[in-house]
Amino acid sequence: MADEFTFDFARRERIGLAEAVFCSGKTAEQIAHAVGLAKARAEPILLTRLSPDLFAMLADRSALDYDPFSRTAILGPWSPPGGDPAVAVVTAGTSDLPVAREALRTLAFYGHAAREIADVGVAGLWRILAHEEELRRYAAVIVVAGMEGALFSVVGGLVGGLVIAVPTSTGYGAARAGETALHSALTSCAPGMVAVNIDNGYGAACAAVRLLNQLHERRAPARAARS
Amino acid sequence: MADEFTFDFARRERIGLAEAVFCSGKTAEQIAHAVGLAKARAEPILLTRLSPDLFAMLADRSALDYDPFSRTAILGPWSPPGGDPAVAVVTAGTSDLPVAREALRTLAFYGHAAREIADVGVAGLWRILAHEEELRRYAAVIVVAGMEGALFSVVGGLVGGLVIAVPTSTGYGAARAGETALHSALTSCAPGMVAVNIDNGYGAACAAVRLLNQLHERRAPARAARS
Amino acid sequence: MADEFTFDFARRERIGLAEAVFCSGKTAEQIAHAVGLAKARAEPILLTRLSPDLFAMLADRSALDYDPFSRTAILGPWSPPGGDPAVAVVTAGTSDLPVAREALRTLAFYGHAAREIADVGVAGLWRILAHEEELRRYAAVIVVAGMEGALFSVVGGLVGGLVIAVPTSTGYGAARAGETALHSALTSCAPGMVAVNIDNGYGAACAAVRLLNQLHERRAPARAARS
Amino acid sequence: MADEFTFDFARRERIGLAEAVFCSGKTAEQIAHAVGLAKARAEPILLTRLSPDLFAMLADRSALDYDPFSRTAILGPWSPPGGDPAVAVVTAGTSDLPVAREALRTLAFYGHAAREIADVGVAGLWRILAHEEELRRYAAVIVVAGMEGALFSVVGGLVGGLVIAVPTSTGYGAARAGETALHSALTSCAPGMVAVNIDNGYGAACAAVRLLNQLHERRAPARAARS
Amino acid sequence: MADEFTFDFARRERIGLAEAVFCSGKTAEQIAHAVGLAKARAEPILLTRLSPDLFAMLADRSALDYDPFSRTAILGPWSPPGGDPAVAVVTAGTSDLPVAREALRTLAFYGHAAREIADVGVAGLWRILAHEEELRRYAAVIVVAGMEGALFSVVGGLVGGLVIAVPTSTGYGAARAGETALHSALTSCAPGMVAVNIDNGYGAACAAVRLLNQLHERRAPARAARS
Amino acid sequence: MADEFTFDFARRERIGLAEAVFCSGKTAEQIAHAVGLAKARAEPILLTRLSPDLFAMLADRSALDYDPFSRTAILGPWSPPGGDPAVAVVTAGTSDLPVAREALRTLAFYGHAAREIADVGVAGLWRILAHEEELRRYAAVIVVAGMEGALFSVVGGLVGGLVIAVPTSTGYGAARAGETALHSALTSCAPGMVAVNIDNGYGAACAAVRLLNQLHERRAPARAARS
Amino acid sequence: MADEFTFDFARRERIGLAEAVFCSGKTAEQIAHAVGLAKARAEPILLTRLSPDLFAMLADRSALDYDPFSRTAILGPWSPPGGDPAVAVVTAGTSDLPVAREALRTLAFYGHAAREIADVGVAGLWRILAHEEELRRYAAVIVVAGMEGALFSVVGGLVGGLVIAVPTSTGYGAARAGETALHSALTSCAPGMVAVNIDNGYGAACAAVRLLNQLHERRAPARAARS
Amino acid sequence: MADEFTFDFARRERIGLAEAVFCSGKTAEQIAHAVGLAKARAEPILLTRLSPDLFAMLADRSALDYDPFSRTAILGPWSPPGGDPAVAVVTAGTSDLPVAREALRTLAFYGHAAREIADVGVAGLWRILAHEEELRRYAAVIVVAGMEGALFSVVGGLVGGLVIAVPTSTGYGAARAGETALHSALTSCAPGMVAVNIDNGYGAACAAVRLLNQLHERRAPARAARS
Repeated sequence: MADEFTFDFARRERIGLAEAVFCSGKTAEQIAHAVGLAKARAEPILLTRLSPDLFAMLADRSALDYDPFSRTAILGPWSPPGGDPAVAVVTAGTSDLPVAREALRTLAFYGHAAREIADVGVAGLWRILAHEEELRRYAAVIVVAGMEGALFSVVGGLVGGLVIAVPTSTGYGAARAGETALHSALTSCAPGMVAVNIDNGYGAACAAVRLLNQLHERRAPARAARS
Repeated sequence: MADEFTFDFARRERIGLAEAVFCSGKTAEQIAHAVGLAKARAEPILLTRLSPDLFAMLADRSALDYDPFSRTAILGPWSPPGGDPAVAVVTAGTSDLPVAREALRTLAFYGHAAREIADVGVAGLWRILAHEEELRRYAAVIVVAGMEGALFSVVGGLVGGLVIAVPTSTGYGAARAGETALHSALTSCAPGMVAVNIDNGYGAACAAVRLLNQLHERRAPARAARS
Repeated sequence: MADEFTFDFARRERIGLAEAVFCSGKTAEQIAHAVGLAKARAEPILLTRLSPDLFAMLADRSALDYDPFSRTAILGPWSPPGGDPAVAVVTAGTSDLPVAREALRTLAFYGHAAREIADVGVAGLWRILAHEEELRRYAAVIVVAGMEGALFSVVGGLVGGLVIAVPTSTGYGAARAGETALHSALTSCAPGMVAVNIDNGYGAACAAVRLLNQLHERRAPARAARS
Repeated sequence: MADEFTFDFARRERIGLAEAVFCSGKTAEQIAHAVGLAKARAEPILLTRLSPDLFAMLADRSALDYDPFSRTAILGPWSPPGGDPAVAVVTAGTSDLPVAREALRTLAFYGHAAREIADVGVAGLWRILAHEEELRRYAAVIVVAGMEGALFSVVGGLVGGLVIAVPTSTGYGAARAGETALHSALTSCAPGMVAVNIDNGYGAACAAVRLLNQLHERRAPARAARS
Repeated sequence: MADEFTFDFARRERIGLAEAVFCSGKTAEQIAHAVGLAKARAEPILLTRLSPDLFAMLADRSALDYDPFSRTAILGPWSPPGGDPAVAVVTAGTSDLPVAREALRTLAFYGHAAREIADVGVAGLWRILAHEEELRRYAAVIVVAGMEGALFSVVGGLVGGLVIAVPTSTGYGAARAGETALHSALTSCAPGMVAVNIDNGYGAACAAVRLLNQLHERRAPARAARS
Repeated sequence: MADEFTFDFARRERIGLAEAVFCSGKTAEQIAHAVGLAKARAEPILLTRLSPDLFAMLADRSALDYDPFSRTAILGPWSPPGGDPAVAVVTAGTSDLPVAREALRTLAFYGHAAREIADVGVAGLWRILAHEEELRRYAAVIVVAGMEGALFSVVGGLVGGLVIAVPTSTGYGAARAGETALHSALTSCAPGMVAVNIDNGYGAACAAVRLLNQLHERRAPARAARS
Repeated sequence: MADEFTFDFARRERIGLAEAVFCSGKTAEQIAHAVGLAKARAEPILLTRLSPDLFAMLADRSALDYDPFSRTAILGPWSPPGGDPAVAVVTAGTSDLPVAREALRTLAFYGHAAREIADVGVAGLWRILAHEEELRRYAAVIVVAGMEGALFSVVGGLVGGLVIAVPTSTGYGAARAGETALHSALTSCAPGMVAVNIDNGYGAACAAVRLLNQLHERRAPARAARS
Repeated sequence: MADEFTFDFARRERIGLAEAVFCSGKTAEQIAHAVGLAKARAEPILLTRLSPDLFAMLADRSALDYDPFSRTAILGPWSPPGGDPAVAVVTAGTSDLPVAREALRTLAFYGHAAREIADVGVAGLWRILAHEEELRRYAAVIVVAGMEGALFSVVGGLVGGLVIAVPTSTGYGAARAGETALHSALTSCAPGMVAVNIDNGYGAACAAVRLLNQLHERRAPARAARS
């Protein structure tokens, strides 16, 4: 089965982001094989969308740091990052937390601490306004929201850091499994908002890592400053 | 051509709302004929979606009070209502104004004064918050917004009156001609929000009239009453 | 886990509608935690979309008044409202009843009695016409219908109260899981119809409560019916 | 250019319905050529969706009986049918009339008289109920409606003849250019309703002709009404 | 629970088609209750979309003639109709058979014999052409097809009877759960084709019954009559 | 403006297909510039979707062989191919001809003669059956059809060559600007059918050229027909 | 049950492709019956979408060569083809392999060897570029990709053989169950790309067989590879 | 008309991005009024989607630096930025240039020089590979592409800077006015890609400005570095 995978281990060197294994739709054999390939190369690897049922079917689970709520596993060596966070992850509701945690775990995998602020949707606007000053301090704010996604625009109008919208499939009917929140993010009246796919906490974190990689080392004094 | 129309003149008596003529897609002859029928019965009538071009083709324009910006015309006798308004009409952006004005003109046709608050979208949240106390005083707030429609939920979480969302076709791409704002209204995290069709300022005003009719003894002269 | 929730207990004071917990997609632990928070504050709370399976997993069920048909639970103190109802809930078919009951339970939670009229779809038009006079007496009529939702327009043309359409996911194929009924409500030829999301009996009831709160002095104890 | 057309002149013999020319999207040259082919064969022919502009560009217009409102032309010999009609064509609103007239002209082309009943949408239910007894007498009722198309189900529940729904593109926003009316027809709660494409008055008439051909011995001269 | 149903037993007298119970989405209690109501009135009744699991949960199954393949049950007295069929039911593939059988059972319930021709899709065109002459003899042909639904147009171009298209959800991907077949029926190049909802064998049969009722004096005992 | 284009002149050598200029949405200046670049390199070039209005705005039209019906232009040297055709282009209706001609012109640009068979849609099935034997002789058959696209499957079941479906935007309503025909091609019951984009006659011809290039030694001068 | 199937055994003779049985949605009885019909005629037959559960329910499994990963079964006599492959099957990711294997098994059923190249998506572009020279040697390249399907265009720009895109349902959210990959294939900037339905590995292989049949004298025994 | 606008002049101070006027759908009077308000405050302002026709209707055009190709105008004082660019704007085709130029003008308005690389779509992969090394040097790369948007993923897999995808409405049919390119960006296999709305060059530039604002001054040494 070896040639079912053509791992791109050079990716981290090339773009600062490593291969990850999206587990949904793969068999336990395929996942175990992927983990084995990484282990043999001593490459740390992140597994996403790994359901508890699928995890339970893996032969060699002990090497993996698994979190069932976010459905992520990390093949280490790995330890939780410390220090002041440069990124915040904000959720509109409690149901958006699994996606937020996928983002937080991805950031942690890359060594970045992050701040979680949960259940601050706009129906009770005081909740997000209570964090207004704090939110201005982050280089990036990942906003996780389903249903109508109004929180994206409210945060986008309050802070100057990069705002990354993660629409979620929370909701029903006209929420259309996250499509409404996604379209809401894309048509936001707040300038410079960007979006990733529905429920894609992993992708939002990777975008934040791209930004943080620019801030630290690489490309340091960026070219021409706005005078 | 007489039998092209079967007017429901009994509607006002029955439900407190009169027949109106939606002009888009009708010929000038058909519209003139409808106006003639109302005139002969001495029934006041409201015409909506009457473009300036179509209005200019009508034979007997002098009897109509026409407003090109909202594309509405009123066949009177009619005079602007006074008194304290019980309804506010709020817009997210300047481009939403024609729809807001259709609502305002419809309310006026039914004898209801209303308050307009324009261009207070959430990208600059202070704008709507500046009106928070005032908005709490209205029995109904009509919110007119396109793009992502985040203003619907923000207002819905601030006030206790009936909040009627009017999504508009303002925007492009993922705004999908108003569908995103419509879905945003329908999936709002603020409880008890209701929605009407895209760009349907007329319908939102009629819903407010239904509410106002309940407030002032059923179908009695509305607060700032039509004479 | 405490900070997974940021409850908006001030909402009832602010807008006359309390926080509710939408249970679908939440874990039993999260729901139990939410109930605990409300209990500690002695706040009554409404839980919606609580499936029998999920309810059975809750640790402390005895404090909840649970109705499996509507999938709602109420944390009291609470007793069914009496008095003359000011709202009617009408369904097109028997399959629409669970959604109608969600609306009825929500109204009851807020202290409002309501009238249920079931299975009066337009294929046998005499059924709704038999209630025509009665329906004119209500301040609001919540109409619950799936498939083509023709009942919305028929009721909207008969009564002067606020007509709130609740499209349901009843039907198959071109019913598109409620989208057709929703679009039917939004494009109704009856003036001033408003709509809520598909299967959203809770939201329709909240809209009615907003109206009733306007009728009975703003935010006064909303127990008694309109006399 | 002769081989741009492969006319199916045998169709009338085979299935009782002749070739027709759908003119939208064709050039004036192509249409003139088609008319010439029919003329040479002395075949009567029906042209649909022939806009006034396109008609004005045809070289030999005198042979055609053209009606700009329904955008149809008939190459005769042809005279309007008489006798008792076996088919009714009912419209919800005035804007649906051009489509209804396409159906009426198609029926006339095949020698069938038909009854038109206009502007009887359900917002004023008494309008259609006034025709209830009469409508029961027709072998087929073609119902033409846009927006939410509630009239389809109301008629379908009142009469026993074949009810053919013609959704129209009348409306805006959630009407989705006729898609909502179409889906409304397809999901009707009235049993045995059938539908044709949006704005397809021609097709509905052809379906009625298929039924009438069965009533009057197969494919006999279908001129006279059902006695 | 009695008032969960408002049966329209007058429907058969009014339009020649009886009430039927669409069982999907109803509880076993509701279905049993409906059957009880019909029994008490000695009204024969048809149940559709009754899954084997749901049927097994009914208390009093012996009174029902149940067919698991078509998921229909008939509450008699009832016996299969004989005589020459006036309707044919044609399927494109074997997977379309359950829907076809729903149509056949519905026709039988109304006392009409019908002819089944199965698995004659256009990929092997000789299959349908082998039945060309026979198909011309029927007053109505119900064509049941999923995927691209090409069979609708082919049959529509061959026969003069009423052609009723039943799109099915057979297929995957771009078949979009029957939407492609439905749109194919609606845009057929064969004139006078009509369509019903996806998988709606019941509705197609009811349309055929409407036609047959016109053929055999209105509502008189249908050809091979129900006793 | 030179660097607005980065021409891929190596494409013909690499894959046997040259760069082409899709003119819709480009300015006359951009198109003229592209033609100039090709001329300077003595590269023949094909321009597609070049409307008569846009063509008339080009400065140096004399070098182009322009066909307004297919909206294509060829910058030569170029002469129409002769020999026996290995490809047929078949259309369902006359309105599909402009797309068919785009395919024919593209084939001609690459030196391949092709056979056109027009207006042979399945409503009159004898039309395509009259060509059955002939169609079996071609290595590829390009089928051009709009509306329900039933012709794709009928041809796909009759011939063994590669069948390339080109859905067109012919039709209205449920034809959805070609989407129905496209989905019809993709869900065809005939095995091994392939599809290109709506109205993409150019792409279908390029696919046929890829096949013909395989037949005649790879990338050899593809002028002569398969003998 | 015999007449539930009208097998088109003449298809292989007519177009070089045999009947196949699409098992999804069929009962075990129907499938067993189909296998029995083929066996009785000594016709080899291919079964697709045969899930392990369904396979386990078949009475006479021993005659079938079953592969659970691709969900295909072959009724022989049959042996794996040898020789140089003329077709390559390329996948973007590991999750696309079941669909790729369906294509490979179909090619094998028709006697064609093929080359599999797995997990070479464009995020690590060096992976597909490593195969560039090899890919140019195949008459056809089947590219299997989900999500955004960027691999289709990259391959289409590199090779001159026929490129057949198979979009897969791999992905989530905006991947829309394969629709995005499908649309990506259809709008590819690489000329002459063709597409089949989502997850339709079988259809892509059949298209390749049509091409190979043209290469090796028409409909000759298609066993041996292009030398 | 003054209160038609509620300008958010505090936005630049608050989030580093100023108010801009989206002109499409506004009247010339409204636009002139907005420009006047900015002038009176001596605030520089950017106008987007300002068509040449609309620009020509403005009374006081001389104060504006207008570029018809990108449809943008700048109210200065303003001068083109110099220095080494930190951002690249890459287009797949020539038709994507107007959107790319909107991004470039927006960056220039904020004082940021940027590099344009045009017409490097993946059909000729060497074109983008020729810029691989250079592209690695930018903090952000804005990729502008329509049709299938394959360029997004290819660039995302090559560079480590923030990759911002701008889908464009270039294309036809299955391109669905940019929806396919948008979905392609959102489902990219390259990690950490972000997207803005269709044709939203302005928004992509604003996102880049958010990133650049983090790099220069604000929030300088971001918290905890990846070790």
